[in-house]
Amino acid sequence: MTKVVTMGEIMLRLSTPGYQRFVQANSFDAIYGGGEANVAVSLSNYGYESYFVTKLPKHEIGQAAVNELRRYGVKTDYIARGGERVGIYFSETGASMRPSKVIYDRSNSSIAEADVADFDFNEIFKEAKWFHISGITPAISAKGSEITKAAMKAAKENGVTVSVDLNYRKKLWTPEEAQKVMRELMQYVDVCIGNEEDASLSLGFTPKGLDVTSGKLDIKGYEKILKEMKEEFGFKYVASSLRESYSASDNGWSACIYDGKEFYQSKKYDVRIVDRVGGGDSFAAGLIHGLLSGRNTKDALEFGVAASALKHTVKGDFNLMSEAEVQNLVDGDASGRVQR
Amino acid sequence: MTKVVTMGEIMLRLSTPGYQRFVQANSFDAIYGGGEANVAVSLSNYGYESYFVTKLPKHEIGQAAVNELRRYGVKTDYIARGGERVGIYFSETGASMRPSKVIYDRSNSSIAEADVADFDFNEIFKEAKWFHISGITPAISAKGSEITKAAMKAAKENGVTVSVDLNYRKKLWTPEEAQKVMRELMQYVDVCIGNEEDASLSLGFTPKGLDVTSGKLDIKGYEKILKEMKEEFGFKYVASSLRESYSASDNGWSACIYDGKEFYQSKKYDVRIVDRVGGGDSFAAGLIHGLLSGRNTKDALEFGVAASALKHTVKGDFNLMSEAEVQNLVDGDASGRVQR
Amino acid sequence: MTKVVTMGEIMLRLSTPGYQRFVQANSFDAIYGGGEANVAVSLSNYGYESYFVTKLPKHEIGQAAVNELRRYGVKTDYIARGGERVGIYFSETGASMRPSKVIYDRSNSSIAEADVADFDFNEIFKEAKWFHISGITPAISAKGSEITKAAMKAAKENGVTVSVDLNYRKKLWTPEEAQKVMRELMQYVDVCIGNEEDASLSLGFTPKGLDVTSGKLDIKGYEKILKEMKEEFGFKYVASSLRESYSASDNGWSACIYDGKEFYQSKKYDVRIVDRVGGGDSFAAGLIHGLLSGRNTKDALEFGVAASALKHTVKGDFNLMSEAEVQNLVDGDASGRVQR
Amino acid sequence: MTKVVTMGEIMLRLSTPGYQRFVQANSFDAIYGGGEANVAVSLSNYGYESYFVTKLPKHEIGQAAVNELRRYGVKTDYIARGGERVGIYFSETGASMRPSKVIYDRSNSSIAEADVADFDFNEIFKEAKWFHISGITPAISAKGSEITKAAMKAAKENGVTVSVDLNYRKKLWTPEEAQKVMRELMQYVDVCIGNEEDASLSLGFTPKGLDVTSGKLDIKGYEKILKEMKEEFGFKYVASSLRESYSASDNGWSACIYDGKEFYQSKKYDVRIVDRVGGGDSFAAGLIHGLLSGRNTKDALEFGVAASALKHTVKGDFNLMSEAEVQNLVDGDASGRVQR
Amino acid sequence: MTKVVTMGEIMLRLSTPGYQRFVQANSFDAIYGGGEANVAVSLSNYGYESYFVTKLPKHEIGQAAVNELRRYGVKTDYIARGGERVGIYFSETGASMRPSKVIYDRSNSSIAEADVADFDFNEIFKEAKWFHISGITPAISAKGSEITKAAMKAAKENGVTVSVDLNYRKKLWTPEEAQKVMRELMQYVDVCIGNEEDASLSLGFTPKGLDVTSGKLDIKGYEKILKEMKEEFGFKYVASSLRESYSASDNGWSACIYDGKEFYQSKKYDVRIVDRVGGGDSFAAGLIHGLLSGRNTKDALEFGVAASALKHTVKGDFNLMSEAEVQNLVDGDASGRVQR
Amino acid sequence: MTKVVTMGEIMLRLSTPGYQRFVQANSFDAIYGGGEANVAVSLSNYGYESYFVTKLPKHEIGQAAVNELRRYGVKTDYIARGGERVGIYFSETGASMRPSKVIYDRSNSSIAEADVADFDFNEIFKEAKWFHISGITPAISAKGSEITKAAMKAAKENGVTVSVDLNYRKKLWTPEEAQKVMRELMQYVDVCIGNEEDASLSLGFTPKGLDVTSGKLDIKGYEKILKEMKEEFGFKYVASSLRESYSASDNGWSACIYDGKEFYQSKKYDVRIVDRVGGGDSFAAGLIHGLLSGRNTKDALEFGVAASALKHTVKGDFNLMSEAEVQNLVDGDASGRVQR
Repeated sequence: MTKVVTMGEIMLRLSTPGYQRFVQANSFDAIYGGGEANVAVSLSNYGYESYFVTKLPKHEIGQAAVNELRRYGVKTDYIARGGERVGIYFSETGASMRPSKVIYDRSNSSIAEADVADFDFNEIFKEAKWFHISGITPAISAKGSEITKAAMKAAKENGVTVSVDLNYRKKLWTPEEAQKVMRELMQYVDVCIGNEEDASLSLGFTPKGLDVTSGKLDIKGYEKILKEMKEEFGFKYVASSLRESYSASDNGWSACIYDGKEFYQSKKYDVRIVDRVGGGDSFAAGLIHGLLSGRNTKDALEFGVAASALKHTVKGDFNLMSEAEVQNLVDGDASGRVQR
Repeated sequence: MTKVVTMGEIMLRLSTPGYQRFVQANSFDAIYGGGEANVAVSLSNYGYESYFVTKLPKHEIGQAAVNELRRYGVKTDYIARGGERVGIYFSETGASMRPSKVIYDRSNSSIAEADVADFDFNEIFKEAKWFHISGITPAISAKGSEITKAAMKAAKENGVTVSVDLNYRKKLWTPEEAQKVMRELMQYVDVCIGNEEDASLSLGFTPKGLDVTSGKLDIKGYEKILKEMKEEFGFKYVASSLRESYSASDNGWSACIYDGKEFYQSKKYDVRIVDRVGGGDSFAAGLIHGLLSGRNTKDALEFGVAASALKHTVKGDFNLMSEAEVQNLVDGDASGRVQR
Repeated sequence: MTKVVTMGEIMLRLSTPGYQRFVQANSFDAIYGGGEANVAVSLSNYGYESYFVTKLPKHEIGQAAVNELRRYGVKTDYIARGGERVGIYFSETGASMRPSKVIYDRSNSSIAEADVADFDFNEIFKEAKWFHISGITPAISAKGSEITKAAMKAAKENGVTVSVDLNYRKKLWTPEEAQKVMRELMQYVDVCIGNEEDASLSLGFTPKGLDVTSGKLDIKGYEKILKEMKEEFGFKYVASSLRESYSASDNGWSACIYDGKEFYQSKKYDVRIVDRVGGGDSFAAGLIHGLLSGRNTKDALEFGVAASALKHTVKGDFNLMSEAEVQNLVDGDASGRVQR
Repeated sequence: MTKVVTMGEIMLRLSTPGYQRFVQANSFDAIYGGGEANVAVSLSNYGYESYFVTKLPKHEIGQAAVNELRRYGVKTDYIARGGERVGIYFSETGASMRPSKVIYDRSNSSIAEADVADFDFNEIFKEAKWFHISGITPAISAKGSEITKAAMKAAKENGVTVSVDLNYRKKLWTPEEAQKVMRELMQYVDVCIGNEEDASLSLGFTPKGLDVTSGKLDIKGYEKILKEMKEEFGFKYVASSLRESYSASDNGWSACIYDGKEFYQSKKYDVRIVDRVGGGDSFAAGLIHGLLSGRNTKDALEFGVAASALKHTVKGDFNLMSEAEVQNLVDGDASGRVQR
Repeated sequence: MTKVVTMGEIMLRLSTPGYQRFVQANSFDAIYGGGEANVAVSLSNYGYESYFVTKLPKHEIGQAAVNELRRYGVKTDYIARGGERVGIYFSETGASMRPSKVIYDRSNSSIAEADVADFDFNEIFKEAKWFHISGITPAISAKGSEITKAAMKAAKENGVTVSVDLNYRKKLWTPEEAQKVMRELMQYVDVCIGNEEDASLSLGFTPKGLDVTSGKLDIKGYEKILKEMKEEFGFKYVASSLRESYSASDNGWSACIYDGKEFYQSKKYDVRIVDRVGGGDSFAAGLIHGLLSGRNTKDALEFGVAASALKHTVKGDFNLMSEAEVQNLVDGDASGRVQR
Repeated sequence: MTKVVTMGEIMLRLSTPGYQRFVQANSFDAIYGGGEANVAVSLSNYGYESYFVTKLPKHEIGQAAVNELRRYGVKTDYIARGGERVGIYFSETGASMRPSKVIYDRSNSSIAEADVADFDFNEIFKEAKWFHISGITPAISAKGSEITKAAMKAAKENGVTVSVDLNYRKKLWTPEEAQKVMRELMQYVDVCIGNEEDASLSLGFTPKGLDVTSGKLDIKGYEKILKEMKEEFGFKYVASSLRESYSASDNGWSACIYDGKEFYQSKKYDVRIVDRVGGGDSFAAGLIHGLLSGRNTKDALEFGVAASALKHTVKGDFNLMSEAEVQNLVDGDASGRVQR
């Protein structure tokens, strides 16, 4: 099996059942997930020896996060244990014109207070083929920034391909802070992934004329930006998911990629949403698998988009789809007919 | 805070979980609500000192109804306690072409058997700015009629603006009975609200050429009727919600109003329904707030419609949306994008 | 009451809650059902003395299946008791482009290992008016084949009208095996019902140019095949449901029938799916009732289609709709407005 | 199968989940049951053709009650349909020193407003061997009294053995009212069953020196009363259950009987309570079966007590135990070891 | 109504369902509660105008805490809004010899970071008769200490009786830190309440020879300590609950009090535990009510003990018992017989 | 970490919620477990590199079993994939004198139809220190017998200590069949574990005068048998758990062991049962850890008994207790006091 590594924060999502609002909830569904952890699970599902690196408290809530990763085949050997708390966020699921809502309670988590010394990066990246991280980890704290940089640097030194999902989070830092950190990290990046707002806020590339609330896509604008990003940072691939938010219940979902030669726009899927959390992560994971498996740029893109379209139909952060199930959709069967 | 008063029946809704039919149910969700109580909760959410007036048994089921009102900030000081039972209705939620169904078991409830003497209306309306009631309360019993009239009269005498939601209920009375009572009550009404059938059945105004099952709206017909109603009863405002029932799962939702000068038709929302009970009440409450907050007629209407569109996405009778959340939709963001 | 008989397997469906994938499930909803049992329940709902014939183990899981039938009015007097197990299948409900999935664990069930001697067919068919069976029962085992043939023969000898739903199951037999058995059984059949694939795989009639995954219907092709089937086997009626699978969440649903004189295509319903298991069975039951109740061919077809459209909105295998509720949809009210 | 008949009210119990208090409940478990209905289910479990007679509304809540009876094999052919409502009661389950609590909402139920003409008693009692009724039915209304008397009289005229469970309900009538009605009905009774308070309140026999809250049993007092009752009314058997309420969680449970010759006290069981509703009814049913099956007085008593001890471990009103399971306890195995 | 005030932290308890261990939980029951908030709810149940003072975030999780208090009648007018988070703790319920477990995640809650300036204590204590606080609030932070002292001082200046529940929490501070703060605060205290460990750890009074894990009570030791505490700090009353922990499922529960004249030991209750969280708080509230209602020392003690015995049978932190229900137990009915 | 290996069947337990009887269940809790798998999880919890060996189908139900093992840290590398089905059993939980009940549906599972060639035993036992198996695996099929023997032989050849839990299952084989197989396998066994019936039925050693339903233990009888067993088969240790089944809710639980020198009887725990499935397995695992960790015979026994006493308080088959939690009970704290 091919070894791949992801690093970041895994949080406890406390999600109101059904479409309950926060003030209605008498219980919360407990879902463990987080950008890079979600990628790790997808890669495990696709057959990789998938390691997730983080720091978690020694207590049982920390252990439950470890267990949920193990359950889906993720290797947890490199997870440091210590610190005080698992980051939490509360979420309620919107419907129609009512948006989903998230309340963060993630400060002072174990990974946000971890040290570079908690991780032996040379051991971690030994024989690894890919390292994936997101723009959330450097945003959670100064230490998070430090660890991210150390990890990316070590990955490159060990000859590991590096991908990043920009994933700007406005509750964690300002665009100025983000760009200061993120632009420097881009030197280590082979594959840069983001959605419509990340390029602008994390790296300062504004998709001109793009109004993300209008639901209209200016695909020419995307092409221009991806090419400029490639030019400035020298990425091998730069890709963006393209979400068209018709409502909280229905979205259009596609993506585009530029590989230095061609710009490709994928097929678009109209998705009836079960749970959109982790949608972007499932695209990243699908794209990584597409590229690692030797598919060409276009096919890798289509695998990523199909994977993430399917993710929207699965409750929880993790995209619990096999490679065969994703490929079946790539191959054109979107009819949803019962598989007996 | 501005004091507002609503009066009526709060019932126990026993609702089958999910889309279960009555004969499948092994449990019922217990939801307390009712036309005017729902308005009271909305007004509390919008920042009013919102009093709900009714009569409830002293036992714990009566107390649970009180508690649910208090939970959402409604003042329960004027609720009389006594009598035998809380009115009940059973409901199952339809889907697609299967309609939702309601079985009433509301006879002999405490409020239906209450006396005018149970309420000190001069105390109740002291310093109040608005009084809202529906056509259900006079329909539940002769005593209900009496109390309604006494309340409306007292409200007017105390200089309180009075609104009514006609809300015709065919299980409670015939059109003839309804019109006999309701037409007389109209003398106390400043703002008259209803949906497509109420004007006809409660007041005898037939929207000519309107086929409520066709899903097509004859907006010209509505304009004509609203103007005639205004003319006959001297309302300051007369408004109607406009439901287009595509199916039990999807409705179009808009409204219109006539303020004696202009006839306005609102923006229309297509709603994927989570729970449509209380949809009309949330429109009434939104409109009341629109008018009380000093918005102009058009803006008040749009606030009411946006509020009630959002209600359709919330489980339970109560429209658990803040003013800011409603205004956000009025201002145009119906994309349902996650709010972090 | 008119006596009708159905025979087949009733299984235990273990269904993941909501849209959970198998690997997420910590519990399964327990639903008893099966092709012919589902028909039996519909017929009971429409007012027939509806007998279901099968064999079930003596233990409590077998008893629970009996109880669920009795609960909905089905007569269980002719059910043989014995054998080892109730057939099981696991199911997860898809959404959007993610298909629903079924894992069978039905080998060696009591009915699959039953003997002809377990049933007294002359007693069973005494005074019965209709016998319905599906192509699943002969497929489950050689004994199942034998019992099916014995039952159909006895039914004909007792002057009972016989209907069959072809219901090809690829996990149970090959097309060659199926055709060998099924073509012979057709001599006893008055009414032959199927969907798009059954005619081809069970009887060898290929709807030319029909691509079941494209979502497009070649209605002319259907007409041709139904006529050929009628010609070859001498059915009184031959009907096919027409599913257009837009996605796992939304389907188009209609049907067509040929009665030897005219070919009719029904109205088409677009259904938002709650549970599509038993959709075909509810069509068969609706059609049987349509014909038994003396409706003409076209009206019987429309009753069947409306019944099965409604089934898609009901959780579980059984179509828990009354005749009046189905007729209401046939009569044109698909608005889903609340019925108070 | 031996035909037996019970008659009375079946209600909808709305039970808070777990140990929730009424004011905590967001849902209610829906349990259909009632004194005589519970007896009917037990007798069905013991292998009788068990008919339950009542009147229920035509709507789906009434139907759900019918279905629940059918599910457990009770014959519902004689149930009249009509009237407005199913009687309801709310219940919460106590623990330790906190008592269970019941709130009744049963007025104006269909059976309370039924007429003698709703029932064809000669048809009902044709070939029946036993008729059981409780003191609740005559208490619910004057019509209930009338129907009870008509039924008991018809039963005697048809040569049916009659048993009554006195079951005094203080919310329904005063001791004076009760005794006036009940004492007259005793002329039709062969087997009189009750618990400690019923004899006193329904018939005016006071167990002297018995303090029901002390938890101590004065068995000599019971013997005396049973003998006096037998003497006055000429019962063949008179029996009493003996509950020792240590707490809401733990009870001692036994019974005694006098057959005109001997007074027997049964073995006592200490029960950890899962659901005590229907405990007395399960004793009545067990005793009836004991006597009908030809057991001697002592063995019939022990069967009744064992049955009802087991009932306390089953959720819901119905005692879902087979004859073999009860007999196993009678035979001495109370170890609760797993049965594989 | 008599005005009473409590102040402290209300937390979100995330409780695994049933007896699940943390690592098994897929959901958490969401329960809002905390030492003083629990007292506030009890006092509201006993008929007081009960104000709870704290600081909570403006977001919906903070609002949900407010709503839960309002639901049970607690006045929330003095609750400051702001800060970042609601304190959280995770809990699992033990059984038999497996202890219940708590994992705290309460740092940096809004109340822990509140300022004295957030509260207008003169307004708060105007016309109040009683102020209750616990030793947890001064322990959560330096600011918590400051606020506690300011509140107690203001209470005394406004002539309000002050009670404290010592409630030592070893996760929050050391005995040394605790004693430094708590001993100084005792000057403001009229009624001092605690359990076996608090006196020792918070105030430095060691119950000699008391082994809290042995389950044996050294009542003489308690008497001595209470008297010494009274002597040193000049309390009017000093009371201690007496828990005998037989297992996680069963406890003995009683209490003792010294009023400067007599030492009283209460009746002991053996409780089968449903939820023991809030047990001590319900004792404090019961004792406060006992004293405020003019009961003598012994009767006040018995009311407190009966109240808290009953609390152990109620799920959640709040003791949802009325005065009449508690008094019923005080008066001797512990039989748990159904109340109809 | 020390490598340990267990081999056997992991089944899907379909467990009715709460105390529901089979015929009441509308859902089943899905619990994966089985004798040796339960031991594997315990050993993982105690810090071993714990491998579980079995064969499971490739489909998602098989995968879910794998995932549940991984979740709790068990290594699944040696699990063969293939075959048709996961063995199933249905269970309902008894209470008081009502026994728990199990219905097996385990024939033809993947492991029952596996071949010796599915497993590379030399690889499996490389560097392993312990191998544990039960008497269930040889009982499920002739192939199961073969595999068991091959595994035990290979273990011995690789110098691995072998333990067996006799675990006689009367539904799988007769005592004669069992003894024929089991007696031969004993040559490979170092540590033989069983409960009261196993020795008799699997090996033919009858505990004379022992009445397992009486609840009385004849400890002298046990001592005699253990010594005879040791003598005949040359075990290093022979141990027996001692269950005293007071009722389905409460058991006494202890154990005894003979190490060739001394016979030890452990402390006895009275357990209030949450879930007794896996109780014996948790004893085996605790004893294995006790011996592997270098504890002396008595201490190893006490660790095993404490572990399994705690298991009875945990829902599901797996004993989710850490070594520290077990040791805490061994060390004497059975008070169940909250651990904060």
